[in-house]
Amino acid sequence: MRTAIYPGSFDPLTNGHLDVIERAVKLFDRVVLTVANNESKQALFTIPERIALARESVKHLPNVEVDTFENLLVDYAERRSAAAIIRGLRAVSDFEFEFQLALMNRKLNERVETIFMMPKDTYTFLSSRIIKEIARLGGDISAFVPENVRIALTNKLKHIPEK
Amino acid sequence: MRTAIYPGSFDPLTNGHLDVIERAVKLFDRVVLTVANNESKQALFTIPERIALARESVKHLPNVEVDTFENLLVDYAERRSAAAIIRGLRAVSDFEFEFQLALMNRKLNERVETIFMMPKDTYTFLSSRIIKEIARLGGDISAFVPENVRIALTNKLKHIPEK
Amino acid sequence: MRTAIYPGSFDPLTNGHLDVIERAVKLFDRVVLTVANNESKQALFTIPERIALARESVKHLPNVEVDTFENLLVDYAERRSAAAIIRGLRAVSDFEFEFQLALMNRKLNERVETIFMMPKDTYTFLSSRIIKEIARLGGDISAFVPENVRIALTNKLKHIPEK
Amino acid sequence: MRTAIYPGSFDPLTNGHLDVIERAVKLFDRVVLTVANNESKQALFTIPERIALARESVKHLPNVEVDTFENLLVDYAERRSAAAIIRGLRAVSDFEFEFQLALMNRKLNERVETIFMMPKDTYTFLSSRIIKEIARLGGDISAFVPENVRIALTNKLKHIPEK
Amino acid sequence: MRTAIYPGSFDPLTNGHLDVIERAVKLFDRVVLTVANNESKQALFTIPERIALARESVKHLPNVEVDTFENLLVDYAERRSAAAIIRGLRAVSDFEFEFQLALMNRKLNERVETIFMMPKDTYTFLSSRIIKEIARLGGDISAFVPENVRIALTNKLKHIPEK
Amino acid sequence: MRTAIYPGSFDPLTNGHLDVIERAVKLFDRVVLTVANNESKQALFTIPERIALARESVKHLPNVEVDTFENLLVDYAERRSAAAIIRGLRAVSDFEFEFQLALMNRKLNERVETIFMMPKDTYTFLSSRIIKEIARLGGDISAFVPENVRIALTNKLKHIPEK
Repeated sequence: MRTAIYPGSFDPLTNGHLDVIERAVKLFDRVVLTVANNESKQALFTIPERIALARESVKHLPNVEVDTFENLLVDYAERRSAAAIIRGLRAVSDFEFEFQLALMNRKLNERVETIFMMPKDTYTFLSSRIIKEIARLGGDISAFVPENVRIALTNKLKHIPEK
Repeated sequence: MRTAIYPGSFDPLTNGHLDVIERAVKLFDRVVLTVANNESKQALFTIPERIALARESVKHLPNVEVDTFENLLVDYAERRSAAAIIRGLRAVSDFEFEFQLALMNRKLNERVETIFMMPKDTYTFLSSRIIKEIARLGGDISAFVPENVRIALTNKLKHIPEK
Repeated sequence: MRTAIYPGSFDPLTNGHLDVIERAVKLFDRVVLTVANNESKQALFTIPERIALARESVKHLPNVEVDTFENLLVDYAERRSAAAIIRGLRAVSDFEFEFQLALMNRKLNERVETIFMMPKDTYTFLSSRIIKEIARLGGDISAFVPENVRIALTNKLKHIPEK
Repeated sequence: MRTAIYPGSFDPLTNGHLDVIERAVKLFDRVVLTVANNESKQALFTIPERIALARESVKHLPNVEVDTFENLLVDYAERRSAAAIIRGLRAVSDFEFEFQLALMNRKLNERVETIFMMPKDTYTFLSSRIIKEIARLGGDISAFVPENVRIALTNKLKHIPEK
Repeated sequence: MRTAIYPGSFDPLTNGHLDVIERAVKLFDRVVLTVANNESKQALFTIPERIALARESVKHLPNVEVDTFENLLVDYAERRSAAAIIRGLRAVSDFEFEFQLALMNRKLNERVETIFMMPKDTYTFLSSRIIKEIARLGGDISAFVPENVRIALTNKLKHIPEK
Repeated sequence: MRTAIYPGSFDPLTNGHLDVIERAVKLFDRVVLTVANNESKQALFTIPERIALARESVKHLPNVEVDTFENLLVDYAERRSAAAIIRGLRAVSDFEFEFQLALMNRKLNERVETIFMMPKDTYTFLSSRIIKEIARLGGDISAFVPENVRIALTNKLKHIPEK
């Protein structure tokens, strides 16, 4: 049985992330979407909120598990006996950063391989950051995120005091 | 009559921005330079200051109007009946980000087209951020911004306490 | 009245080209699709064939003219009193080459401006070269080119002896 | 059982290719290295020679098969019931071209997924083209290709008349 | 006698920086590694700490001096009668930013030339930022920084309260 | 005494090349512009013609020598006891190819370092290929090449039969 992990901030999960997962489950026996508990990034949703949103969004996929990790990704991958780390690639700028990260991870642990997958072309412009920005400005994001995420995002933004 | 809008932070307007506008007025009947009222970005000049600086800098161009907008750019474009959004392109990194933005805007409103223009080659290195940095370090910025902007920037930096 | 020219090899015209023209006609009073008579490139269709295919494909667009040019593009643009040269941008590699070309054209004639437009995202992978390759290998290209081009391409490839 | 195909010209196979295959066999039950029989490219080795060199180079890998294909890659992938097409990524320029190819293949057949893998960092500069050039100029290529390829390349270049 | 300066944040110095300096000393009679005293960047080490770490790391190189500068780099270069500013290039994203910076510096002072050097390929993924992140997460950084930097970084992170 | 070599096709030398050489002579005691005798590229000028044009163009620079080389560049660099190979960088696409070449050369000979220099910004669009194309189409190239090259190019093109 081969397991792949799909790490990220997922703050929140988008249709682009979902598309990558739906492709990945065809290649591996189990895919673990794992939320990075990285304190240094300013997040909108808490870790438990992000996990709950992701879990709800992937419940139609039997071989997908949602988890979280702290500390080094390669240590987590080792602990989960992952054959591969999956990363989505959308653009050249993604590519460079992802490449450096994957090379560094390979230096830290030779046994874990990174593979890159390509989301559907109509999702190449999607990012959690840009979706939060559009939601904040009152734009319609229903084509970009699952319905449960859309509701959570709308509620969350209502309760944030104006900067 | 065709209107184009030229959105940006303009914090402050540079000779690169001015060059793009001077090219744009030859292609459209009216060009609206519009300052994004985006609270999330740390700005040096206030919105009214940025509008005043831009207005002074473009007063020799009869078909240019200076305005500001809040919320979604595509909604503003629709309200102004703009045929096009103009964006300047300087480098590959610009290109990728601008491309994603333009695709997202097209998803949000099919009717507004984004076109990309190229500033004069001697301005490809210019950015508001780098100009503010040079001014802060005491460098001569008179070749990079209109004279009124140079004066305003020098005055503004005098009154900022050392970090 | 403002005229824009849209130059290219159009060997043959694709749905990506067509998409750019349909966007351009909203910005200019007249758009001239002009086939470069550039002997140095190995072409599949002759210039008259390419013109005929393009003309048939744009006949639903009243303000589009199909033409051809030899020698320098900027001289042709001047002769046609064009306000702008339109170029489609799909990817970073496009961008760099197009940028150099536009800068060079600006050196040769300051009066002609190049503007860049973005085809529909589902066409970002399209190129005349890749379509000819797929057609040659027996693939279905009906989603990538207008119907008249599909027929002409199929006929043309039938009459080419195997290399 | 999951099969992946690794297509390419392999004219000839390099240590970079070999590195990608050795990584891929850990992720799939079977990996088929398949030589593209693409007449349009000027090749140094014939298809049977390239197959023989690749077969010799991967004989230590039990789950690797060497094959060849004509016509569309996605049709071959379908026939082989491949879950994935594997492509190595070395640089930004690779990335763009590969991305366009993968998007086009996805349009032609939704069922076949492309995944990208990263060769060892010391192989990022390797390409069959550059190795042939160095061999032609009398350089030492023993660090860049398997020994059987080195011998075949040296012999082949001896028998090619000077251009 | 020709002097080159090698400016940077060096927060802290990595093996990638060290590799560039060891290459630069073969090309110039004196190389001055100079720490930018740039208040606007959030630093982990103080300027005196960064200088001390760099000095210790380059003490085997007789023609290398460690210094610091405030204000404009080109003014510092002029004062040190530097023939060149040295910058390491690792990736495309580096390249663009560095290019813009070098062009701007050339505008500010025509006499100082920027040259770009390439660190060892196994260091292309290294950055001070990523090393600090790995150290913070408990990863082993001994292959990426000189031993004195590794000790200082470990000590420094022990005394930082959790965010 | 430090020597740098500046290799290239120089078919023919442009103002961009000349600009790089004029910058390089300030950094090295001797700069050898060396014409690659690479049969595989389709050239317009013969090697002796290219050498003569370059020699005439650099005669105002006392420390510049014009030479030619066959076979591996690193072997030539070693024979000339060169401390560095100089390459001009104009754009991202240049950068990637040049990087791979430099890495390969470093593998072939550790002792020779490649450094990258940046031509004047108004020359970033220049290439021998594009200049030949413009000359062929009857455009004015006097701003892009030295006068002797302009005359030679005009004469050469007169005597080439139409393709």
